[in-house]
Amino acid sequence: MTALPPEQRARGVVAATRGNHGAGLAWAGAQLGVPVVICVPIGNNPEKNAAIRGFGAELIEAGRDYDESVEVAQRLVAERGLVIAHSTNDANVIAGAGTLSVEICEQAEQLDAIVVAVGGGSQAVGAITAVRALRPSVRVYGVQASGASAIHDSWHAKSRMTTAAATTFADGLATRATYDLTWPALREGLAGFVSVSDAEIAAAIRLMIRATHNLAEGAGAAGLAGLVKLRAELAGKTVAVILSGSNIDAVTLTRVMTEAL
Amino acid sequence: MTALPPEQRARGVVAATRGNHGAGLAWAGAQLGVPVVICVPIGNNPEKNAAIRGFGAELIEAGRDYDESVEVAQRLVAERGLVIAHSTNDANVIAGAGTLSVEICEQAEQLDAIVVAVGGGSQAVGAITAVRALRPSVRVYGVQASGASAIHDSWHAKSRMTTAAATTFADGLATRATYDLTWPALREGLAGFVSVSDAEIAAAIRLMIRATHNLAEGAGAAGLAGLVKLRAELAGKTVAVILSGSNIDAVTLTRVMTEAL
Repeated sequence: MTALPPEQRARGVVAATRGNHGAGLAWAGAQLGVPVVICVPIGNNPEKNAAIRGFGAELIEAGRDYDESVEVAQRLVAERGLVIAHSTNDANVIAGAGTLSVEICEQAEQLDAIVVAVGGGSQAVGAITAVRALRPSVRVYGVQASGASAIHDSWHAKSRMTTAAATTFADGLATRATYDLTWPALREGLAGFVSVSDAEIAAAIRLMIRATHNLAEGAGAAGLAGLVKLRAELAGKTVAVILSGSNIDAVTLTRVMTEAL
Repeated sequence: MTALPPEQRARGVVAATRGNHGAGLAWAGAQLGVPVVICVPIGNNPEKNAAIRGFGAELIEAGRDYDESVEVAQRLVAERGLVIAHSTNDANVIAGAGTLSVEICEQAEQLDAIVVAVGGGSQAVGAITAVRALRPSVRVYGVQASGASAIHDSWHAKSRMTTAAATTFADGLATRATYDLTWPALREGLAGFVSVSDAEIAAAIRLMIRATHNLAEGAGAAGLAGLVKLRAELAGKTVAVILSGSNIDAVTLTRVMTEAL
């Protein structure tokens, strides 16, 4: 938000999101006096919706999933003259997401690999960019949910593809497409790319709670689920996983803890 | 640990705990090369026990509750020449616990009250001491579990008493007595003292998760439960609650989320 010139801030910002990008923009808009409109799909996580509204943004619930919410946001650019802040196709957003990996590179005494969950790919491209500059021997691996695996499938096929649906409780990963700004870097920069089932993500949330007592939403635990899947390849290595996102709603957390997921 | 002179560090440190004090000492001992022995009661939280062992301390499971573990620790002082680090009756521990409230005083733009859970009283005495020096208009309230209410009962009676048992799932609050170093300050310094049931603490854990997506153990959410109880008295005020402790075990968290607690 601070990267936008004053005339763009004055027009207001619009974004599509499953929640965390929108909550961040809503908070930043409130700090800086910038009007913010957030588009989420129908049926979005109610606690994330409450956070976005609580930070003072206008919330528009429309569309079937994230990629349809992006279309709604793009219509509002035309209709209202808002400036779009795409959660992936925006160099400033990717630069921001990359600061996580810059801090890992600066602070880890030993580091062989980073395993990163991929929704649109901003954190993964941030990691690829950070390690290339700061610790070029570190390998970056991607993880997607098996029910929302367009980028995973594209990476293995070496060709961009979309999926008909994005079906996972890890809402931050529920995408159906590749994205222009991240796809080339992911295709070239990832050392490997695995997919994990919802049950494997739920098990990783439980493991994160039991072993570290940190709360993670599905997207926040998917990196750990991916590391479990990569355990043979990465045995004996020092690996970072990113827990980014603890905004799991109470109903879903109950299902995870009772192993209904 | 850093406050101990070298000859005391060389003898090794012993402490009684329900977990967090012990995990902290175990970690500090590992950093500084100081042998650490931790006494917990039989049936203590298995994930806290695993953390203490994982940080390299010797774990002794003996006694029925925290106050019996204190007796075990005191025997080890005599038998092995260890230095005791009491979780409450130690000025350095209280000074450390007080840094929480110093940071609150420094960072809060507006502040009328702090609501603090009381196990032995180190955090509450730290809060009383910090606000007296930095923001003397701030009122400090204490909260205990209704099944482990010795200090709460003593405060209202203006006379020290013990209870026969300490029965609460909030293990960090499960004490049966007042403590020499904290009792006088609590008696004089608290503006009020409430007790909360296990059901009220469990509801506060759920509220903390739903509203902030932070994981809290029982002792970590008891301040919020106390604030709910004090809502009429503190209506319209700016109040800080301390979330200190997220080490709830998976079995207990499942009971909380399914409202079995």
